[in-house]
Amino acid sequence: MAGLIGTVTLNLALDVTYGVDELVVGGSHRVKAPLQRAGGKGVNVARVAATLGYQVLALGFVGGLTGEIVAEELFDAGLTALLTPIRGETRRTVAIVNGVDGDATIFNEAGPSVSEDEWRAFHDRMPWARLGVLACSGSLPPGLPADAYAELAVRARHHDVLSVIDVGGDALVAAAKAGAVVRSNGAELREALGELSVEEGARQLVAAGATAAVITDGARGMVAASNQGAWRALPVERVAGNPTGAGDACTAVVAAAVAGSPEPDWPVVLKSAVAASAAAVLTPVAGDIDLEAYRRWQPQVVVQSL
Amino acid sequence: MAGLIGTVTLNLALDVTYGVDELVVGGSHRVKAPLQRAGGKGVNVARVAATLGYQVLALGFVGGLTGEIVAEELFDAGLTALLTPIRGETRRTVAIVNGVDGDATIFNEAGPSVSEDEWRAFHDRMPWARLGVLACSGSLPPGLPADAYAELAVRARHHDVLSVIDVGGDALVAAAKAGAVVRSNGAELREALGELSVEEGARQLVAAGATAAVITDGARGMVAASNQGAWRALPVERVAGNPTGAGDACTAVVAAAVAGSPEPDWPVVLKSAVAASAAAVLTPVAGDIDLEAYRRWQPQVVVQSL
Repeated sequence: MAGLIGTVTLNLALDVTYGVDELVVGGSHRVKAPLQRAGGKGVNVARVAATLGYQVLALGFVGGLTGEIVAEELFDAGLTALLTPIRGETRRTVAIVNGVDGDATIFNEAGPSVSEDEWRAFHDRMPWARLGVLACSGSLPPGLPADAYAELAVRARHHDVLSVIDVGGDALVAAAKAGAVVRSNGAELREALGELSVEEGARQLVAAGATAAVITDGARGMVAASNQGAWRALPVERVAGNPTGAGDACTAVVAAAVAGSPEPDWPVVLKSAVAASAAAVLTPVAGDIDLEAYRRWQPQVVVQSL
Repeated sequence: MAGLIGTVTLNLALDVTYGVDELVVGGSHRVKAPLQRAGGKGVNVARVAATLGYQVLALGFVGGLTGEIVAEELFDAGLTALLTPIRGETRRTVAIVNGVDGDATIFNEAGPSVSEDEWRAFHDRMPWARLGVLACSGSLPPGLPADAYAELAVRARHHDVLSVIDVGGDALVAAAKAGAVVRSNGAELREALGELSVEEGARQLVAAGATAAVITDGARGMVAASNQGAWRALPVERVAGNPTGAGDACTAVVAAAVAGSPEPDWPVVLKSAVAASAAAVLTPVAGDIDLEAYRRWQPQVVVQSL
């Protein structure tokens, strides 16, 4: 079983989606029972990796009855999960999707606090021997140390497991220093390192200690850097749709590549990552990708050495 | 224990309330964990009756994890409940309350279908010997017969229990024919009987078989009719606030009076009902009343014989 893609979602959520004909502020709306899915960036990574045919293990915290619904939904979705119970109640996000234009109005709960004991319990049950890679994504719940992802990366390394960490700000630099493969986007990169090009930023992260850095660059494509070089993949045809979850599709591809080899063929990985991100934009729900579009685009992506 | 006020809420809900600074359509809002309460008109009746010092038994259907939360919240609120399990998932209502003006934007789920077997199970566990009165309020879930309340009223009578039924439309006339004490408002009354005065409507319902009719008449107060006569109570001082739940406060007072005697002193009941309704408007949440205001207003209400 070695080779599982472990996906870490420290701030798991139940995503609740209501459809309305038209959202009227101050109005009263009749709605059907909502669509409910486990959510959080790490769950999107797990879903995309599973869709691409990889074995995944979803890791995170769950609490209360909302946590039970999250666990059930992961099970129903066919995602194997190893969830650490917490005293607090798992958070929800509520999205009201307007029938007129498909726009979503979103309400995000902050999430329950995670105690030191619960964080220790999470580490204690980590099945390192079964993991090929550990992919960590998304916000941290209250109570956890700011360097929680870096801590996971160090522990992963100790067990000869490489980690892929999608994060912004100071945590991005900390993850690089801990030797992880780091994932981020242009805006978060500049938030962490100041004004600079995505190429320069990716190289700085590798210089700081990252095994590799893969940075999405919006309409300009995607950049990867490692000790072997740096590359830019150009975007596929202009895609319209829901960009939420596109970065998570990239993380899923990167994690799957790293599970196979700590120094994968980055130009090939970038081709798959760009195709998967674009294929995620085509679907209305984060965590889903259009597999047919992915397969069509993957060979077409152009990668340049920088 | 005879003398319990049984409150029937056939379409129980979990009322979920989120506070936002300002609701922006298409926007993303950070919110705290929501306030969650058991809801539905019958639950409001139970809360008000309990606040006024009466023993209540909340009756209804619950299903799924949302149903568990409803049952827990009733328990935490100190309301004894006898809940019939159903296969479907208990519905939720979601209210987004705007910090700017306090206005609520509301999303109401229709609720799960109740099967014939579940409806029979509801009847089978009805503790008639312990009930002083049965108060039925609010919408019917899908699956139940349109005359469900009239059926309950007939069964109640068979066990020498009087029922108070707050309903509109055809079901109002059916409840009157079944001999219940009927509760409604002016708009629902006219929907059932056509254009006529509230006094005339109340008298028609008694002529149709109702033990009594108590109709709220908005800013014009409240009217009661029985075989002993008809009365109008004038409203107290103009009250600003949240009118949701004011009618349920009236039903709670009427149910408590009827539990004591099938032909209570209606002018006295009307004084309490008007005071309780106004005291409900003062509180932001349906099901709560301002007990001090209730006690202050009750002796001040003016009742006229019609």
